[in-house]
Amino acid sequence: MNTRERVRTLVDAPAFQRVIIAVILVNAFTLGCETSAGLMASYGWLLHAVDRIALAVFTVELAARLYAHGWRFFRDPWNCFDAVVVGISLLPTTGTFGVLRALRVLRVLRLISAVPNMRRVVGALLTAVPGMASIAALLVLILYVGSVIATKLFSAIAPEYFGDLGDSLFTLFQVMTGEAWSEVARSVMEAEPLAWIFFIGYIAVTTFTVLNLFIAVAVSAMESQVGKERDDDGETVRQLLGEVRELRSELRELRAEAGGAPTARP
Amino acid sequence: MNTRERVRTLVDAPAFQRVIIAVILVNAFTLGCETSAGLMASYGWLLHAVDRIALAVFTVELAARLYAHGWRFFRDPWNCFDAVVVGISLLPTTGTFGVLRALRVLRVLRLISAVPNMRRVVGALLTAVPGMASIAALLVLILYVGSVIATKLFSAIAPEYFGDLGDSLFTLFQVMTGEAWSEVARSVMEAEPLAWIFFIGYIAVTTFTVLNLFIAVAVSAMESQVGKERDDDGETVRQLLGEVRELRSELRELRAEAGGAPTARP
Amino acid sequence: MNTRERVRTLVDAPAFQRVIIAVILVNAFTLGCETSAGLMASYGWLLHAVDRIALAVFTVELAARLYAHGWRFFRDPWNCFDAVVVGISLLPTTGTFGVLRALRVLRVLRLISAVPNMRRVVGALLTAVPGMASIAALLVLILYVGSVIATKLFSAIAPEYFGDLGDSLFTLFQVMTGEAWSEVARSVMEAEPLAWIFFIGYIAVTTFTVLNLFIAVAVSAMESQVGKERDDDGETVRQLLGEVRELRSELRELRAEAGGAPTARP
Amino acid sequence: MNTRERVRTLVDAPAFQRVIIAVILVNAFTLGCETSAGLMASYGWLLHAVDRIALAVFTVELAARLYAHGWRFFRDPWNCFDAVVVGISLLPTTGTFGVLRALRVLRVLRLISAVPNMRRVVGALLTAVPGMASIAALLVLILYVGSVIATKLFSAIAPEYFGDLGDSLFTLFQVMTGEAWSEVARSVMEAEPLAWIFFIGYIAVTTFTVLNLFIAVAVSAMESQVGKERDDDGETVRQLLGEVRELRSELRELRAEAGGAPTARP
Repeated sequence: MNTRERVRTLVDAPAFQRVIIAVILVNAFTLGCETSAGLMASYGWLLHAVDRIALAVFTVELAARLYAHGWRFFRDPWNCFDAVVVGISLLPTTGTFGVLRALRVLRVLRLISAVPNMRRVVGALLTAVPGMASIAALLVLILYVGSVIATKLFSAIAPEYFGDLGDSLFTLFQVMTGEAWSEVARSVMEAEPLAWIFFIGYIAVTTFTVLNLFIAVAVSAMESQVGKERDDDGETVRQLLGEVRELRSELRELRAEAGGAPTARP
Repeated sequence: MNTRERVRTLVDAPAFQRVIIAVILVNAFTLGCETSAGLMASYGWLLHAVDRIALAVFTVELAARLYAHGWRFFRDPWNCFDAVVVGISLLPTTGTFGVLRALRVLRVLRLISAVPNMRRVVGALLTAVPGMASIAALLVLILYVGSVIATKLFSAIAPEYFGDLGDSLFTLFQVMTGEAWSEVARSVMEAEPLAWIFFIGYIAVTTFTVLNLFIAVAVSAMESQVGKERDDDGETVRQLLGEVRELRSELRELRAEAGGAPTARP
Repeated sequence: MNTRERVRTLVDAPAFQRVIIAVILVNAFTLGCETSAGLMASYGWLLHAVDRIALAVFTVELAARLYAHGWRFFRDPWNCFDAVVVGISLLPTTGTFGVLRALRVLRVLRLISAVPNMRRVVGALLTAVPGMASIAALLVLILYVGSVIATKLFSAIAPEYFGDLGDSLFTLFQVMTGEAWSEVARSVMEAEPLAWIFFIGYIAVTTFTVLNLFIAVAVSAMESQVGKERDDDGETVRQLLGEVRELRSELRELRAEAGGAPTARP
Repeated sequence: MNTRERVRTLVDAPAFQRVIIAVILVNAFTLGCETSAGLMASYGWLLHAVDRIALAVFTVELAARLYAHGWRFFRDPWNCFDAVVVGISLLPTTGTFGVLRALRVLRVLRLISAVPNMRRVVGALLTAVPGMASIAALLVLILYVGSVIATKLFSAIAPEYFGDLGDSLFTLFQVMTGEAWSEVARSVMEAEPLAWIFFIGYIAVTTFTVLNLFIAVAVSAMESQVGKERDDDGETVRQLLGEVRELRSELRELRAEAGGAPTARP
């Protein structure tokens, strides 16, 4: 057993994984504490130290797994996820990349890839995504067309909602979620009483499409649950059909043996 | 091969369809850019030129398809859709028809009819519509009756919500979607404390009806998915029943041959 | 054929029903017009006249159906519905019963009982109600307990939302529908920061219960659709089982005839 | 029959249970009345007296059931529920435990454990909980990570929503329920126009996860309904398979008896 194999045995050991999960949980707690100005004033040095140690542990673990598995490491999407999430924390966070400092907490999402049960749940959720793609594309198209129309018609009337294409996209996304749409519609309808046609049409179309998006997810979830049982049933029935055919051909042989000429039945 | 057939071969070619899709996408982009005052000031001439060219392409394509397929062209509802959407762009947009200028962006929806996958998705969505018709009619009836009652009872109390039948229809549609209904109800209840009976009754009835509208869509979607597999299973079972009956009649023949008088069993 | 039978033939005739539907639609239109002050000023006399005539038609029709069917008339719940709805319009609308004037528009709901398709849809909706009863009762219990607690805890803090038990019931119904609950919660949390425990607990419990209420409706709708097909399949399989048993007993008889002693197999 | 058995017969008698249900209902009514200052001024002594009596009845009943069933009493979770709910009412409600006075109304929830139908409904609801646990844990993780990020990025911009981690958790829970999220987002976007990326991403992820949480509940509810029928069908098919195999082996015996050497078919 060479070094690489020894490292692989180590990083794949359940005990090692449990240690990593513990580090993630501790780090999640300290990252939460770091948002409190009071705690930072008193224990800031401790929180930073724990954070540094956790990051070091993650970096070493990642390097060990990369060394153990070689380039095949990147074939598992969860490994890529871990690499990106840890990588973000290693980037410099000065100047324009200040937002990256906030994104360092994404490290906590490593809990998903570290706990097998979570991994399975997220995997199951993601299987529904391809079935949604076409309807989601349709929804984006409706949103875009609606936004261009709304910008042209209402940009002068309600600039806070429909000032430019970006505003309109945001506002119509908001209307699609049903959030405060009456406020938007009423403020436009004050100047353009017929605007209800646009809003009610848009709500009817998007609600119907979103509903179908949800149904697509629900149907695919039920399919995968019900499908297995149905396959079992189907298997039993097919087995039964085989048995009966076998039986029939045996009966025919018996008749042949009994001396009766087998008829030409199919 | 006469001219008409040659044109038909051309317009039905996948390469031709791909060109049209590219033109739609470019046009969608320029129509979006046209909403920006800044871009219009700098590149307005270019955006207008691209728009003109795209419209010309669509018009020529439509004319070619109409020539190729003759009057059967209008039998396919997607062709009618294309004709209407391109037709809107060709109408004059002066005077009272200024709104048509905004509707020219509907051309982008040609993406649905041009991409076979989108066409299939929208087709699937539309199959759910007939099953919804009865419940939707019921919902419109409830909305209408509710609006007449609300106008009579609350028009003096809350004229901004229930001033006339049109206002009431809009407000009760809003309440049906659950949007800011408490605001409406509370403003009425200040003057008429018993108004909660109307609002809670209306919300209970419409929520229940809308829920059933959604379930009708979901059931029809699941039916069409599950139905196919169920049919396969049913087919296997029926096939099995045929085999067994065949077997029984063969056995009876064997008994006849073996000399035993066949009994009169059914 | 005596008078009673003649009247029954008349009121049950499709042509008669179509006339009634036409009268309902015209009356629905005039009742809508009556909400407009402008139309009432110009054509008030006409609208009132049409309304009187429609009411007279409904009263005569109801009396005819009551005469034709005798007391069995009230066995059909739709007939009771018609009687109540027309009865409301015949009550005096002076003094404290002014609200009845607004309820006269409920007559338009006779469209449901008059159009067989609508009748069927509403009938189907109502079949889901018994299955909901237990969960709805649970929801009312949660609402009541929550309201008593909220009144005791928050009546001094937010009297506009939780002033007395009635206010609390309305506010918690509103929170249950998810409408502006953050506004309510934030106004309470200003004085009582721990109130989030109550609100989030209440939302979690009611959302989960309402979800199950909706699922109960959905399951019962799917059951009735899927059940029928499943019964057909089950019937085929049971038929098959009968055939196979028949076959086995025939085979045993054959063996007996062939001279082999039948074994004591079950 | 010793005393313990006699007590057990008494407390398990339906008539006894009906009396307890009546006491719960009366107590629910008086607890509701106690929230009204007017009623308390006039009939406060009566309401308090009824409340004391009801509490005494519950305490005696609980003691009797505990005596009758011994320590096995606590094996039934509903008994523990009753004990906790009655126990809360017996605690002193002075000083810092003033909130317990409001929680005394939880006693009314004993209606759930006292009415067998309610007990069954709540039991059915709770069976869906384990299936939700993984997705709920994922949702809590997303909420936590989102809140840390939001606090770091927006605490200075919108302190009323994202001032500290607690505020952010509450605000993002609110956004997850879709309540007034546009208000939150717009107030942040005034200072940080790119904040839409965070909000729309967060809404997309949580809506999708919540949808799957709901679907998990729906699928488990349907499974338990459909599963039973499916099991019946599967049973019939398995029975059929047994019959056919039996038939085949009998046929083989017949051939052996008829003198033909049985072939080596499987």
